[in-house]
Amino acid sequence: SFSRGIQTVTVIPGDGIGPEISTAVVKIFEAAKAPIRWEERNVTAIKGPGGRWMVPPDAKESMDRNKIGLKGPLKTPIAAGHPSMNLLLRKTFDLYANVRPCLSIEGYKTPYTDVDLVTIRENTEGEYSGIEHVIVDGVVQSIKLITENASRRIAEYAFEYARNNQRNSVTAVHKANIMRMSDGLFLRKCREVAENYKDIKFKEMYLDTVCLNMVQDPTQFDVLVMPNLYGDILSDLCAGLIGGLGVTPSGNIGANGVAIFESVHGTAPDIAGLDLANPTALLLSAVMMLHHMGLHGHANKIQTACFDTIRDKKVLTKDLGGNSKCSEFTAEICRRIQDLD
Amino acid sequence: SFSRGIQTVTVIPGDGIGPEISTAVVKIFEAAKAPIRWEERNVTAIKGPGGRWMVPPDAKESMDRNKIGLKGPLKTPIAAGHPSMNLLLRKTFDLYANVRPCLSIEGYKTPYTDVDLVTIRENTEGEYSGIEHVIVDGVVQSIKLITENASRRIAEYAFEYARNNQRNSVTAVHKANIMRMSDGLFLRKCREVAENYKDIKFKEMYLDTVCLNMVQDPTQFDVLVMPNLYGDILSDLCAGLIGGLGVTPSGNIGANGVAIFESVHGTAPDIAGLDLANPTALLLSAVMMLHHMGLHGHANKIQTACFDTIRDKKVLTKDLGGNSKCSEFTAEICRRIQDLD
Ligand SMILES: CC(C)[C@H](C(=O)O)[C@@H](O)C(=O)O
Ligand SMILES: CC(C)[C@H](C(=O)O)[C@@H](O)C(=O)O
Repeated sequence: SFSRGIQTVTVIPGDGIGPEISTAVVKIFEAAKAPIRWEERNVTAIKGPGGRWMVPPDAKESMDRNKIGLKGPLKTPIAAGHPSMNLLLRKTFDLYANVRPCLSIEGYKTPYTDVDLVTIRENTEGEYSGIEHVIVDGVVQSIKLITENASRRIAEYAFEYARNNQRNSVTAVHKANIMRMSDGLFLRKCREVAENYKDIKFKEMYLDTVCLNMVQDPTQFDVLVMPNLYGDILSDLCAGLIGGLGVTPSGNIGANGVAIFESVHGTAPDIAGLDLANPTALLLSAVMMLHHMGLHGHANKIQTACFDTIRDKKVLTKDLGGNSKCSEFTAEICRRIQDLD
Repeated sequence: SFSRGIQTVTVIPGDGIGPEISTAVVKIFEAAKAPIRWEERNVTAIKGPGGRWMVPPDAKESMDRNKIGLKGPLKTPIAAGHPSMNLLLRKTFDLYANVRPCLSIEGYKTPYTDVDLVTIRENTEGEYSGIEHVIVDGVVQSIKLITENASRRIAEYAFEYARNNQRNSVTAVHKANIMRMSDGLFLRKCREVAENYKDIKFKEMYLDTVCLNMVQDPTQFDVLVMPNLYGDILSDLCAGLIGGLGVTPSGNIGANGVAIFESVHGTAPDIAGLDLANPTALLLSAVMMLHHMGLHGHANKIQTACFDTIRDKKVLTKDLGGNSKCSEFTAEICRRIQDLD
């Protein structure tokens, strides 16, 4: 059903450079004739009835109805007790899988080439449970919560992802030598799920070993699945290998097709409004979104135009090593999309 | 007192390639006329009175008396319930600081040059508390324990280290945006201690951000201090940047001068006994040990001979890209030490 007719997507432009890069994505989608209608919403958290922070009702309603969202960067609220908006969104819509493909971009030089891996992070529990106590003065504990259900669910997501994206292997990343019960449970569920995917190779590896091997030869990795905090770390590490958060897409996936795609870089207040921002991370997140919606043709066309623009090095934003404005970089991608037709 | 007379050091050759690389270090120390007498001990854990695993009494007694140990790799015991020997040693001797200098080695090519940083890991608590529970079927919790005392102690160690080693900055690595109480306490102690070291620049950074920046430009880092698990991850990541665990030294430091220096690579059973092992990591750990004992002259001489051998590329073990045996590599280092005299 996703692939027919015009779909409405909730767009959350966000703060700082958010509006500029969202505008860029909208223009590029127009050029590609992507059958998307945008419904703009603001998600600045509000205090609900019981004093709890919540997503504003009109944004929640829009996401509930459209199921798909595209989100720019949000500034971190400074109010005491205010939750991270990213965490609040993940929780509100039960977005249990954070998916970050890391792909080397031709022409954008880093110490690595041919990186092509995907980190899949459990997004709802683990070290992010938010449960902490003072035991006695000067002694604090944080609780890492691992459940069978969430572990099975993320493992299944990872294997399904691998199968649907022609990937060869899934590596479970853990420290079950130390956290024998919690990471042990996570690992056991991964092993069990692996039994149902004999077409995908299953591996398991300690987190520290993954980090070491990753910086030595990232090409050995394919799909990686892991608990929340390990995913936070490893997804940023891998983004670093291919050029940083400015070129790395991200998707937060929930049940029943619900998903929010987002750039994970900051709001860059210093260059906000100056037409200097690089829209690549948000654009590639929007490409992930198109794939998620089954619009593979549009997705591929936009990605090709974006990568060709970067490879050619003629029209690049400053952070990519060029002198062009965001609007010029955007126009160049649009031009290439028209040429591809 | 350390710098005068002959000191006795407990040496734990370890398993697999452990005996070969320990022999190499002993030979090189002889060539350097290091005033060290070695007392060999085996640390295979035994079951004590209450059924608890413990370090054998003669090894414990030797360490208690000598205070300084040098340890090769130990094989991971497979007996159920058997603790990691590394963890048992850290615990038995309250070795609260794990120190790993990562220094680019000229002539040993990796994607990075000019890496020169030190990770300092809290070694006694945090995610390694070993406290875990099943709450209900399918729901498990692991407890991360952070105390004021251990946090202050490691922060003080890091700043003292920085001052004594002519380092410019200490970066506290944390996720206090997520684990507000536990990492919050750790961070607060770092900030407090920083107040007493105005000569050292203090920075704080999220773990994910450190990982990303580390793979993009490790030269921006100097001394890093962090809770247990983060140190486990980051120390391996950084080792990867300079060539892996085969060339990375490590020291575990306790109170009152007690310390065990060790190579953190595995036992390499496939090449054990074949005179093919690379003794560099254990040798550089032994160099750290000499510095710890105040024997800087001997330390520098051995390190220079080792690095010169690697830079010259004439006599290298297989893993370093050469064809030489462990004994030949060792002899070359000894020869260069004699030339330095
Ligand atoms: C902003 C922060 C709460 C978040 C996290 O720690 O998960 C971020 O680092 C991420 O990876 O999305
Ligand atoms: C062997 C293992 C228990 C240990 C750890 O996790 O601390 C190792 O990875 C290390 O870094 O010394």
